[in-house]
Amino acid sequence: MQPTNYQQLTRTFTRLARFGHLSAIAGWDMYTMMPPGGSQARSEALAELSVLQHQILTDQQVGDWLEEAEQEPLDCLQRANLREMRRHYQQAAILPAELVEAKSLAGSRCEHAWRSQRPANDWQGFAPNLQEVVRLSREEAAIRADTLGCSRYDALLDIYEPEMTSARLDTLFADLQSWLPQLLQQALEKQAQHPPVAPQGPFPVEQQRALGLEVMTLLGFDFEGGRLDVSAHPFCGGVPEDVRITTRYSEDDLFSALLGVIHETGHARYEQGLPREWSGQPVQLARSTAIHESQSLFFEMQLARSTPFLKQLRPRVLNHVADRPAFNEANFIAWNQRVKPGLIRIDADEVSYPAHIILRYQIERALIDGNIEVADIPELWDQKMQSWLGLSTRDNYRDGCMQDIHWTDGGFGYFPTYTLGAMYAAQLFQAARKALPTLESDIAEGSLNALFDWLRQNIWQHGSRFTTGQLIRNASGEDLNPAHFRHHLETRYL
Amino acid sequence: MQPTNYQQLTRTFTRLARFGHLSAIAGWDMYTMMPPGGSQARSEALAELSVLQHQILTDQQVGDWLEEAEQEPLDCLQRANLREMRRHYQQAAILPAELVEAKSLAGSRCEHAWRSQRPANDWQGFAPNLQEVVRLSREEAAIRADTLGCSRYDALLDIYEPEMTSARLDTLFADLQSWLPQLLQQALEKQAQHPPVAPQGPFPVEQQRALGLEVMTLLGFDFEGGRLDVSAHPFCGGVPEDVRITTRYSEDDLFSALLGVIHETGHARYEQGLPREWSGQPVQLARSTAIHESQSLFFEMQLARSTPFLKQLRPRVLNHVADRPAFNEANFIAWNQRVKPGLIRIDADEVSYPAHIILRYQIERALIDGNIEVADIPELWDQKMQSWLGLSTRDNYRDGCMQDIHWTDGGFGYFPTYTLGAMYAAQLFQAARKALPTLESDIAEGSLNALFDWLRQNIWQHGSRFTTGQLIRNASGEDLNPAHFRHHLETRYL
Repeated sequence: MQPTNYQQLTRTFTRLARFGHLSAIAGWDMYTMMPPGGSQARSEALAELSVLQHQILTDQQVGDWLEEAEQEPLDCLQRANLREMRRHYQQAAILPAELVEAKSLAGSRCEHAWRSQRPANDWQGFAPNLQEVVRLSREEAAIRADTLGCSRYDALLDIYEPEMTSARLDTLFADLQSWLPQLLQQALEKQAQHPPVAPQGPFPVEQQRALGLEVMTLLGFDFEGGRLDVSAHPFCGGVPEDVRITTRYSEDDLFSALLGVIHETGHARYEQGLPREWSGQPVQLARSTAIHESQSLFFEMQLARSTPFLKQLRPRVLNHVADRPAFNEANFIAWNQRVKPGLIRIDADEVSYPAHIILRYQIERALIDGNIEVADIPELWDQKMQSWLGLSTRDNYRDGCMQDIHWTDGGFGYFPTYTLGAMYAAQLFQAARKALPTLESDIAEGSLNALFDWLRQNIWQHGSRFTTGQLIRNASGEDLNPAHFRHHLETRYL
Repeated sequence: MQPTNYQQLTRTFTRLARFGHLSAIAGWDMYTMMPPGGSQARSEALAELSVLQHQILTDQQVGDWLEEAEQEPLDCLQRANLREMRRHYQQAAILPAELVEAKSLAGSRCEHAWRSQRPANDWQGFAPNLQEVVRLSREEAAIRADTLGCSRYDALLDIYEPEMTSARLDTLFADLQSWLPQLLQQALEKQAQHPPVAPQGPFPVEQQRALGLEVMTLLGFDFEGGRLDVSAHPFCGGVPEDVRITTRYSEDDLFSALLGVIHETGHARYEQGLPREWSGQPVQLARSTAIHESQSLFFEMQLARSTPFLKQLRPRVLNHVADRPAFNEANFIAWNQRVKPGLIRIDADEVSYPAHIILRYQIERALIDGNIEVADIPELWDQKMQSWLGLSTRDNYRDGCMQDIHWTDGGFGYFPTYTLGAMYAAQLFQAARKALPTLESDIAEGSLNALFDWLRQNIWQHGSRFTTGQLIRNASGEDLNPAHFRHHLETRYL
């Protein structure tokens, strides 16, 4: 019997997922295990594979099957899968191969140089490389915008966050801007009355690792289908059947690695909870970048930094590391709920984090839409940091506009998903609280299964079956609403 | 300008090498890092890749290019590369893709189940999986034998050891059988006069690992291009730029892991010493399985278990583990040169090792040629172990016919290369001794560079430039000659 067009597509996407598996594991290995001498050969091998994946996905036949499959009798789930297939195909097939290659080369060059330019505070060296990346990203954005019928920036945003637009981001972020600066100020004033004390190291790495593994177990990480390792920049990688999370340890700082592990465990449980029966199909995949981030922030910010969880966590910490005065319960909690505005995004607390994101969003949008040039970035960055957090980055590029890797290889449109994720996380936690009346006391007792079941039923098991809007409405009864994030911050910090 | 047919071929083989790189790393990961839940998806991903590699290699165009390239002006090295390309092409092109995929899947399944079936001594569970692997291997052997015009078993042997035949193996092994049993008996009698004392554990794993790393450094392993990890069944994997060796630790037994590490380091240095300038081309690859094994046995048996090296090794051991009475110099040497016939091949000393190989060779040849079935193996195994080493494996499958990984994924034809390797190693060490008059005293002083340079110049740097026969004649002045192995054993053990 002749396979249907839809069947042809599912076979092709299964094949792509298998190659994606090898790419994910070789990528994980590159950041966790590979000795430096393997670097050149690995890059070549991964580039060869990505050329192959691109060829398979953008084959004219895939386009034909997509058209024909529309006419075939499909159930609801197959339609959702077809919608996601079309999305993947269009995203890949729109761009001319020369542009993809030019952007990849310019991105690698800029990112590679940035690794030494950032510590050297070398803006003059960095700017021309970034300008070239911006030039090619604008070209990409123009092509995508033409097809999608939207603004250039929105066309890049769509890669990470389908359905999201800058008009909507402007509304959401304007809401935050109307109350967040004052909330931050009040939180700082309250905290100044009893400043938390920093726990003093050293905290041996082996103890930190054992503690991290125990907490991952508490959080339901499935070690039959995943691992914890070390990398310079923590991430969650691998495949749903074999999720690889990483952290990095500092002997001076116990909580940086631990909360990092909890954050990545949130990403990991989403991956581990994706619907296994649709394995290899686009509809199995995580819904979007912001929904992925909502799961990690649900674990880290909503759950782990809550007072009842921190009370649970403290004796577990003391099972692994020697007691310190700073580990008394009140300080243990206050230290993990402290507010500390600073220059560096990845070190920011959840109250000051949105400032870092809105600043980057405004700059990258103006950059892609052609309203500013790379040369304008440092001045704008300094102005916005001054106005949001009262901090100067004048002549300090290293801790200012050169601190992130995202722009170096053209990842414009990604930053907003961090704060969208924080808002989704607050909204979902609020919905879980309504659904689970004993949630607070469950957390205080370390009984987390009902909460995880709620996440599984409402988020994880759906993969990409629903659009983001449908998913969040089904789970919480309403569209994305920043009031929940505000309520969460007010409750915790005021 | 139109590329030549030879250039088209080199591009195709470079591409294949890149996919081979990903397969090697994903394979290494599977045995060292992967949690059990990742097994199914990994098998499928690797099978998909092997189908792709098979398609690329067996494309009709490759066949055409190979024909046409014969007429092109090529230098000596390019001719050798072309010869190896043809060999790879022919080996692959005769198998239908479905058989390749079926064998890969059946092999993964059998091997994965074997990991728990072996400790459980579960022959009943294992046998049907193995039968399926045997069925597919016979199919493969029949197709290969048709093309090569040889017996089925010889057709599989040819994969690992070109130029070798079972007729020649029978001659070589008959030679061994004529003198080895008596030599083993005499060695045992001699040893019985002063039986060596076993060093008592426990030897903490971390100390063993640190010692292993120090010895790898002494042996010139390049850690910029390789790693040491743990796996159930030690191996040398990865790619020449990034060689991954493994070992396994037992707290009771210091020397099993240590000599294992030395053995794999021999494999690794061969890989690390392959000609980097021919990277990605078949002519770069190691000459054959037996030549590969000759390098590991050169390191382990010829070098590391020699009296001068053991004298060198002893103080290094004492840098890492606490002294024991059994570590006095005489016993340290005697313990590492002891003869101890046992059930387990990988624990065997070099005098009894050939018995394990000849037994497996006879069984696997009968299995592939269709003279016995899987159900007959345990009985035959027991008979042969009784007759060679006087040991019973009745009802003990775990330490009998289920002890090795090789058959689980269809690696029939591989076992003979261990003993061929031992013979090559003895012959090469004898040649090195002639070329390097101060070799013994150099080893006693820990100056090993001249020896490694000799290996590099005579073996490593040639990759597959020469046939095995040419390589061994160039290096030692004669064809494979088991007299050197006999001389080596008599000198060390009698």
